[in-house]
Amino acid sequence: MTLKNGNSYRESLKELNPEVFYLGKKIDDRLGYPSFLPHINSAALTYELANMPEYEELLTATSHLTGKKINRFTHIHQSTDDLVKKVKALRLLGQKTGACFQRCVGWDALNATYTVTYEIDKKNGTNYHKKFKEYLLYVQENDLMIAGAMTDPKGDRSLKPSQQKDPDLFLHVVEKNDKGIIVRGAKAHQTGIINSHELLAMPTLAMGEEDKDYALAFAIPVDTKGIIHIFGRQTNDTRRLEEGTMDKGNYKYGIVGGEALTIFNDVFVPWERVFMCGEWEWTGLFVERFASYHRQNYGGCKTGVSDVIIGSAVAAAEYNGVASASHIKDKIAEMVNMTETLYSCSIACSDQGHETDSGAYIVNPLLANVTKLNVTRYIYEICRLCHDIAGGLVATLPSEADLNNPQLKYLIEKYLKGVDNIPTENRMRIFRLIENMTGGTALVESMHGAGSPQAQKIMILKQANLKMKKKLAEDLAGIEKEK
Amino acid sequence: MTLKNGNSYRESLKELNPEVFYLGKKIDDRLGYPSFLPHINSAALTYELANMPEYEELLTATSHLTGKKINRFTHIHQSTDDLVKKVKALRLLGQKTGACFQRCVGWDALNATYTVTYEIDKKNGTNYHKKFKEYLLYVQENDLMIAGAMTDPKGDRSLKPSQQKDPDLFLHVVEKNDKGIIVRGAKAHQTGIINSHELLAMPTLAMGEEDKDYALAFAIPVDTKGIIHIFGRQTNDTRRLEEGTMDKGNYKYGIVGGEALTIFNDVFVPWERVFMCGEWEWTGLFVERFASYHRQNYGGCKTGVSDVIIGSAVAAAEYNGVASASHIKDKIAEMVNMTETLYSCSIACSDQGHETDSGAYIVNPLLANVTKLNVTRYIYEICRLCHDIAGGLVATLPSEADLNNPQLKYLIEKYLKGVDNIPTENRMRIFRLIENMTGGTALVESMHGAGSPQAQKIMILKQANLKMKKKLAEDLAGIEKEK
Amino acid sequence: MTLKNGNSYRESLKELNPEVFYLGKKIDDRLGYPSFLPHINSAALTYELANMPEYEELLTATSHLTGKKINRFTHIHQSTDDLVKKVKALRLLGQKTGACFQRCVGWDALNATYTVTYEIDKKNGTNYHKKFKEYLLYVQENDLMIAGAMTDPKGDRSLKPSQQKDPDLFLHVVEKNDKGIIVRGAKAHQTGIINSHELLAMPTLAMGEEDKDYALAFAIPVDTKGIIHIFGRQTNDTRRLEEGTMDKGNYKYGIVGGEALTIFNDVFVPWERVFMCGEWEWTGLFVERFASYHRQNYGGCKTGVSDVIIGSAVAAAEYNGVASASHIKDKIAEMVNMTETLYSCSIACSDQGHETDSGAYIVNPLLANVTKLNVTRYIYEICRLCHDIAGGLVATLPSEADLNNPQLKYLIEKYLKGVDNIPTENRMRIFRLIENMTGGTALVESMHGAGSPQAQKIMILKQANLKMKKKLAEDLAGIEKEK
Amino acid sequence: MTLKNGNSYRESLKELNPEVFYLGKKIDDRLGYPSFLPHINSAALTYELANMPEYEELLTATSHLTGKKINRFTHIHQSTDDLVKKVKALRLLGQKTGACFQRCVGWDALNATYTVTYEIDKKNGTNYHKKFKEYLLYVQENDLMIAGAMTDPKGDRSLKPSQQKDPDLFLHVVEKNDKGIIVRGAKAHQTGIINSHELLAMPTLAMGEEDKDYALAFAIPVDTKGIIHIFGRQTNDTRRLEEGTMDKGNYKYGIVGGEALTIFNDVFVPWERVFMCGEWEWTGLFVERFASYHRQNYGGCKTGVSDVIIGSAVAAAEYNGVASASHIKDKIAEMVNMTETLYSCSIACSDQGHETDSGAYIVNPLLANVTKLNVTRYIYEICRLCHDIAGGLVATLPSEADLNNPQLKYLIEKYLKGVDNIPTENRMRIFRLIENMTGGTALVESMHGAGSPQAQKIMILKQANLKMKKKLAEDLAGIEKEK
Repeated sequence: MTLKNGNSYRESLKELNPEVFYLGKKIDDRLGYPSFLPHINSAALTYELANMPEYEELLTATSHLTGKKINRFTHIHQSTDDLVKKVKALRLLGQKTGACFQRCVGWDALNATYTVTYEIDKKNGTNYHKKFKEYLLYVQENDLMIAGAMTDPKGDRSLKPSQQKDPDLFLHVVEKNDKGIIVRGAKAHQTGIINSHELLAMPTLAMGEEDKDYALAFAIPVDTKGIIHIFGRQTNDTRRLEEGTMDKGNYKYGIVGGEALTIFNDVFVPWERVFMCGEWEWTGLFVERFASYHRQNYGGCKTGVSDVIIGSAVAAAEYNGVASASHIKDKIAEMVNMTETLYSCSIACSDQGHETDSGAYIVNPLLANVTKLNVTRYIYEICRLCHDIAGGLVATLPSEADLNNPQLKYLIEKYLKGVDNIPTENRMRIFRLIENMTGGTALVESMHGAGSPQAQKIMILKQANLKMKKKLAEDLAGIEKEK
Repeated sequence: MTLKNGNSYRESLKELNPEVFYLGKKIDDRLGYPSFLPHINSAALTYELANMPEYEELLTATSHLTGKKINRFTHIHQSTDDLVKKVKALRLLGQKTGACFQRCVGWDALNATYTVTYEIDKKNGTNYHKKFKEYLLYVQENDLMIAGAMTDPKGDRSLKPSQQKDPDLFLHVVEKNDKGIIVRGAKAHQTGIINSHELLAMPTLAMGEEDKDYALAFAIPVDTKGIIHIFGRQTNDTRRLEEGTMDKGNYKYGIVGGEALTIFNDVFVPWERVFMCGEWEWTGLFVERFASYHRQNYGGCKTGVSDVIIGSAVAAAEYNGVASASHIKDKIAEMVNMTETLYSCSIACSDQGHETDSGAYIVNPLLANVTKLNVTRYIYEICRLCHDIAGGLVATLPSEADLNNPQLKYLIEKYLKGVDNIPTENRMRIFRLIENMTGGTALVESMHGAGSPQAQKIMILKQANLKMKKKLAEDLAGIEKEK
Repeated sequence: MTLKNGNSYRESLKELNPEVFYLGKKIDDRLGYPSFLPHINSAALTYELANMPEYEELLTATSHLTGKKINRFTHIHQSTDDLVKKVKALRLLGQKTGACFQRCVGWDALNATYTVTYEIDKKNGTNYHKKFKEYLLYVQENDLMIAGAMTDPKGDRSLKPSQQKDPDLFLHVVEKNDKGIIVRGAKAHQTGIINSHELLAMPTLAMGEEDKDYALAFAIPVDTKGIIHIFGRQTNDTRRLEEGTMDKGNYKYGIVGGEALTIFNDVFVPWERVFMCGEWEWTGLFVERFASYHRQNYGGCKTGVSDVIIGSAVAAAEYNGVASASHIKDKIAEMVNMTETLYSCSIACSDQGHETDSGAYIVNPLLANVTKLNVTRYIYEICRLCHDIAGGLVATLPSEADLNNPQLKYLIEKYLKGVDNIPTENRMRIFRLIENMTGGTALVESMHGAGSPQAQKIMILKQANLKMKKKLAEDLAGIEKEK
Repeated sequence: MTLKNGNSYRESLKELNPEVFYLGKKIDDRLGYPSFLPHINSAALTYELANMPEYEELLTATSHLTGKKINRFTHIHQSTDDLVKKVKALRLLGQKTGACFQRCVGWDALNATYTVTYEIDKKNGTNYHKKFKEYLLYVQENDLMIAGAMTDPKGDRSLKPSQQKDPDLFLHVVEKNDKGIIVRGAKAHQTGIINSHELLAMPTLAMGEEDKDYALAFAIPVDTKGIIHIFGRQTNDTRRLEEGTMDKGNYKYGIVGGEALTIFNDVFVPWERVFMCGEWEWTGLFVERFASYHRQNYGGCKTGVSDVIIGSAVAAAEYNGVASASHIKDKIAEMVNMTETLYSCSIACSDQGHETDSGAYIVNPLLANVTKLNVTRYIYEICRLCHDIAGGLVATLPSEADLNNPQLKYLIEKYLKGVDNIPTENRMRIFRLIENMTGGTALVESMHGAGSPQAQKIMILKQANLKMKKKLAEDLAGIEKEK
């Protein structure tokens, strides 16, 4: 059976025992730990929806390796239609969770590695692609969740990997032997890694020959010996440890994706799981491929999340009695316009995708970078407009515990009442949802997830064909061509 | 032969003799008149490129009526792929002309009328669609240029057609007889009409029963008796009457589309060319269809024009010796990002199009409106950044006549020299191109062409499904559904 | 002695015993409670700096009532220079605290009440101003901190006070007797009230005669019988209850101002502290005066806070090794530009202030509203750029407890190291400061403090003199004046 | 008599006979030439208003040299109040002309030269300041209009003056003798120079020792032998040569300032008019002083022009029948907000000005640069919103000649009628005013006048005191100071 469901996903995680730290302590029961549950719920939904007939088209696909139905999150894109469906699947899950569901990073890592290993082998006669296809088959057959491990800590950002004072600030090979390789270093911002099955490591930037020990791609289980995960703090994180549901905002799902700093203390990787080792000439392409796939996503998942934020603004306006005010409607129209613009960018980079040598399809890289660059701006503005519409109570609301205090309950219900037909509790819940979905970590994730804005600008300039545009202008201005 | 070329297009226009006024005078030789030539050149290019093998895929199509190869500008869209090709054809022509080539208005009118007449007939048992298909055949076989006639003068905009003090401020039927109808009124902003073969009139807004005399669609030649065209002024228009090419900027093409105020002084339309007459219930749909098709375009043609503007900024920066300055590159990246965002919106509304009852395909209306709303903002910002990059000479440059004055030539060439390897004249030509492409009429056209921003916002809100979004938020906030 | 210092301020608070609830519990030791301390520290700094010679000019003033040196936060502005100094004092305190120091609300309430009571008395022959001056003297002599109590809960915002189903949704008089009045209702978003001495209540909007019971201004101690304060939650609030300092970000001060929902359960106010009771005709002016004073502030305090945010971005860039990247410098220039624009608006509305009938000076209301409207946009953008510069660790950083865990300390210090000469802990501290100063509650406060943006737009239109501007245009266009 | 009026200004210009070229021809009767008249009218208004009692306070000042009443445009600022009055005078003139009135460049040149020569002399023991005061006296006594000559052509902008292939691309000394110096080169964008009395040349950028021949400041009459002025083209410039008034838009005044390329063919300057010659160390300060004064202006004159644009939008909305639409009011509020923000920046940089060593007052340079940087953005947005409100007729309106054609007059008046009580001609006039005030040259002038945006950003960063801000952040984050 290639499709897991929510339960079998959770069950399968029990078989892994990664070393996870959070708030200074080692967490042994990560599946029962309240800080992690919302993140696990989000990821689990990628399994659950795949089993529901109404979402089958978007959430499953037919494996090009086996012809079997697989969860789309393990699929290698076979057409631009697959790329469009990816965006729609992500928007759907964004709408259902209002959160990051974490599974796209590994998906993009699978597709990037698939295409690049094919090209390396074709050029170099290596057998990375064959090994990777075997790995992919294993992933598809077991419906595994993969953590795509891209970003190294980077240390002093003005220096290359081999120039860093501490050579471990980028993940690198420290030993090779008959059976495999030993790696040391770390990967930061590892989305969903504590509830993933495997991690798939990739190079983080284009490298030169001097950095060839850092030119690495491989896959291993997340609980491989020598790996430590330090789970990062998030805005309002400890509300997950409080009683009740209201003050958590989006109490069931994770808002952002549960990121960890993953440290590799001399970790062994067998050769059959090594997909690049030393081929520094291909690191640039690797990063571009992964980044293009990953930047495509942000007009999918984030527009789903934006739909929730727009919906919360609509609800707040209604509860406050101002839904028909023209300035409110105008602001909602602006929120919708930005959301659909982001969605359009993702759809367009998919529609304009093309086949790679390996047969897998890749998005249009120019438009994928445009997608992400816009996300780094629009999401902030969407959240700003949501604050504008909702009002100041988002920042000063009493706690759920206050509402539950018998001495205060009547007073809060009386004085925080909005329009007559809406219970005060509902109004409070919407304000809390807004507080938790529109600030702090969630904003930063829209900024830096899939790479920082400057990385997108560099790619945009690289892809823009300015020479052709200059010639268009010179021709129309009547300027004689330079001989 | 269904494909005209540039020459046969111009020849065919000679057979028409519309009554055209400009700058206070009747213009008899409109094909030789220097103020009109650039506009005619732009339109002619839609014919010329269709005959070039490298553009055949984008500029021609296969008629669904006859199976013959036709100019794409007369085609009824048969798939989302046709819609995507439309966008690409428009961008190509925008790049080649740096201007409006006028022919999309009629194209969109053909498609809108095709789909709506089908639905009217299906509901009412009328025969508009049959008549329209005959007309379409005539257009395709003769490769005609159609002026889509949508916008009425509207008078006091707070009043409906029948409420206006002067009933003629919207085009309406004043008489019906056995042979046809007599119409009176006007259409404003008629793009390309003086060099079109036919006009296809449509209703300008959703109407109620009291306005049924205004619920009108029909087609007639642009030189039908009783029609007067008053050609509007454009920014720097009389430079077209000057000698030389430099000060015209884009001297060969029209920058914007050559718009006229077209007045109908009791004009006869035979019944076989009447496609709607009194069916007020369908006016809303008619406008929506046309507007959706037409708003799609602006991420095509305007991105082509933007490519030229970006190219002129790149050229100016190089000529000034600042091409490698980081702030210049950053601004160019922003210009590219905005251009590709607009393009993405057009591609996405095409990719997400759907079939109508008639079999013709229509774009996604939400995303088409998003496209146009963004155009009303981004084009201004693109032009602003171009000014920033180019420098102040755009506003203070001596004239071409000064450069040709023997006493001044040496001085101008000496003192307006930029980098060493670029002739001063080239630098001046780029500045003039920028001056003429980035100000005045060209900006206003990006604002109001295909409808004003507020019209787009209304459609965006209408299409946004806010109720669904609100429910998403309430579900995630833990709010019990209202019973 | 009219000047308190930090200690005497804290001591004086002990003499008050307000009923305060937080997180569902009654808090008895509010001065020792870790959630409240940072807010108290911020307010205390307004007392401390007034005793330091280098800040004397900005933080103290000469009472126009007594000629004595007083804390400027109790001063009635006697000149435009006083208004300019207000802005500078606020910026200074914003820089020193990176937070809201709460005391301006009461200050603005004092000035607004001073000017309006004078005008009421002049018109109506009442003695509100005389009573108010006595109260003011008491405030100045004892250097009291006043909570300005403006915003009522408002219920259904489409309804006026007397139209609400529950008449208590706006604060109102329920009884009058020889000694005073009894009031019922609530005030929301009460900044700094739990560590203030007195509250000064004012009407929240312009009212008609039917709402005259709501036309109220008065002052009472914050622990008056019948008053309950429910302290609102803030983003990351419970980090204040954790050990350590790092994860609190701005650990010493409060980020925002410690807001409470203050409920008046039939509270008695003696006549000598009633400054308006029933004079509905003056409510509009009252709100305008207070709002103008209060909107002026946001280009003072928030620019001080912005200075800290800019400084944190500069530090982050240096620690990351990217301080000299041109895109980083460009973003910092944009942050500075926005900050100084906001400051300019505050300075300008002060410079262009004018004397009121009472002799007190009021800011230019048009420019004060412009100030605040810009704040609702720029602060978000400043925070966005700070996120951009700082990088993704702002959202995924391990906790201080992790750093203190001996097993992790070495690993975190190793892998989160930036440039060589900066300890990892410092880098983490800056990221935490950024996380806590740029998200959630802090943003919302910039949006809605001193009134929501739409309130500012309405005032801007009202003050804009559009008729004069229209005439300028008509004159230049050669349009004959209408007779 | 130190105050000229409009007539005596025009008369005095007749005594000068500068060599002026325009559109390829030498213009001998520059005072009667229709292309120049509107510019002369704008400048003349600076003389006329100074004689009107209601503007006396703003348009005149008391000379600190003589104690006489002088035109403020020749005044050396003696206080921050003078600086504030400068801004108000500029806004007033912007409102009255809707145009550039040209005289501020020379005014700023006078003030900059006054302050810098004082400091050079103090350091070097030269006598520039004494000579300059004599010159200033002459200017004040004769109420002269001075063209401030700052911007050199610059050639390849990546090269310094002495690195250019052609050494004349920056104005420089080619010979010195007993009587004076001979200079060669050019100044670009010379605002108002053909209707000025004198030009006052200044260095255009900070120079090193190798460029000391370019470190020059001097004053001479604009018709000095060897000087040629080539008057630049402007958008819609030749409409000034057409009959009628409507199509000119702002028919009486010049929209922008009438800029010329002024060439110095070995021009003699007597020593008594040389105010800097070789003191390269002072060029940076010179440019900063002039730029600060000049950037201050743009929140004065441009806000006056914006008032006219806002007024034209208000008029257009009323004429169209949409004045009460909420989206129209919202856009007008935005236009007002931007306009008043720019004004605030100018007021603030004035209020926060300070005394220089010479006794003259200078604006706050940080805030002056902020002013101008905002202008380069807001004016475009103000124009964009004006286009949005006015509607498409701005781009397609028939000509005044059409309206005067008897065959068309009735039709145009009928079909371009808006609301009932406004003559069609008035509506057309407003649209034409908008077309001419909001596009092309006028926009570019807001971008590059007083220096390009990047120049402002560099100054903003230089003035921002980032080190202090960084320390604020580090202190609040609990970071130990570096020892």
